Amino acid sequence: MNYYVSASVLSADLLNIKSEIEKLEKNGVDMLHFDVMDGIFVNNITYGLPVLEQVRKATDMTLDVHLMIADPAKYVERFAKAGADIISFHSESQSDTLATIRAIKSAGAKAAVAIKPNTPAESIYEFLPELDMLLVMTVEPGFGGQSFISSTVDKVRLIRQKIEELHLDCDVQVDGGINYETAPVAREAGANVLVSGSCLFKAEDMSEAVKKIKGEA
Amino acid sequence: MNYYVSASVLSADLLNIKSEIEKLEKNGVDMLHFDVMDGIFVNNITYGLPVLEQVRKATDMTLDVHLMIADPAKYVERFAKAGADIISFHSESQSDTLATIRAIKSAGAKAAVAIKPNTPAESIYEFLPELDMLLVMTVEPGFGGQSFISSTVDKVRLIRQKIEELHLDCDVQVDGGINYETAPVAREAGANVLVSGSCLFKAEDMSEAVKKIKGEA
Repeated sequence: MNYYVSASVLSADLLNIKSEIEKLEKNGVDMLHFDVMDGIFVNNITYGLPVLEQVRKATDMTLDVHLMIADPAKYVERFAKAGADIISFHSESQSDTLATIRAIKSAGAKAAVAIKPNTPAESIYEFLPELDMLLVMTVEPGFGGQSFISSTVDKVRLIRQKIEELHLDCDVQVDGGINYETAPVAREAGANVLVSGSCLFKAEDMSEAVKKIKGEA
Repeated sequence: MNYYVSASVLSADLLNIKSEIEKLEKNGVDMLHFDVMDGIFVNNITYGLPVLEQVRKATDMTLDVHLMIADPAKYVERFAKAGADIISFHSESQSDTLATIRAIKSAGAKAAVAIKPNTPAESIYEFLPELDMLLVMTVEPGFGGQSFISSTVDKVRLIRQKIEELHLDCDVQVDGGINYETAPVAREAGANVLVSGSCLFKAEDMSEAVKKIKGEA
């Protein structure tokens, strides 16, 4: 299995994004994770299109955009145009899941569905054959710096089993509270794309942190 | 009358906000104008709380936050805590106007009501005695770089007349398409806080641009 680290931009120095990106690139981070929150779907308003557009011009890194917005179907095409390589949206949002997956793919991006800690694995099995990635939230979406909810590990395991059973090529991403203790647990359960915020940005040696999160050190 | 220039952050280099702020401070810009869009009230998602919090730590400039969000009442206290000095919200939003003005003041910020180009001046007269500022949108809210709608000038004039008639101390802000041609027109009609985006950031001499917009050069 290939492992990837996606750096949560919410934990970066937002006044110096350009130099943060250069640091992430230099230290072997694979993707940039963009948490877009509209204040309706979750209780926070973060950032969206204009920031993503400028980031796209500054880097070739994979831009992994996580939409925590009420009606993602309305925006997926614009986020793809703004430079998103992967777009995740919530099955708990008001948009139709299958139609939104197809809209993301038509717009040329990879499609992912995200599920909150209380959403059962079974609810998304039917969509797996259409997906490039499944995002299992390991904290309640809305804020950075929260603790990993360990009951979500079983869900990761169930989803990875189903992906293998169906012989699909689908990444499983975990987001929330990923650090040196929780990353190995998530990987062992079947996650291969690990979002890291505080752990990565606070590391003294970011390159070493990336390797540890991927299980290479 | 005292004139102020509020720089629209949406026109800044968003990957280097720290150095943009330093440049604005050095060139005599009075305020930073933050357009917060939730993708529901307007068709764009820009930035919100985490960006504002970091900007607050980096500058003592007046932070002038313009909420283009569906339910501003829900968020005004958090934007005040994040560092907003002035909070504008739309009378066309779903929040109760008077209750929201009072919530902003209780949270320790200055309160402003914003109105779209098609909203009549008369609709906000009753709130003027409660307000620190009235924001007249001179373009349709949602994007930067649009052209000034000249029919909004009469509205600015009516509002300034009403403020004088009532002997109130209330600023009148204009936002959208403000440049060297439209700024004098808006000032003459009674606007004293001028939001400037493209015109300011594209100026060869920003300090000179500030003076021209204020009518000092």
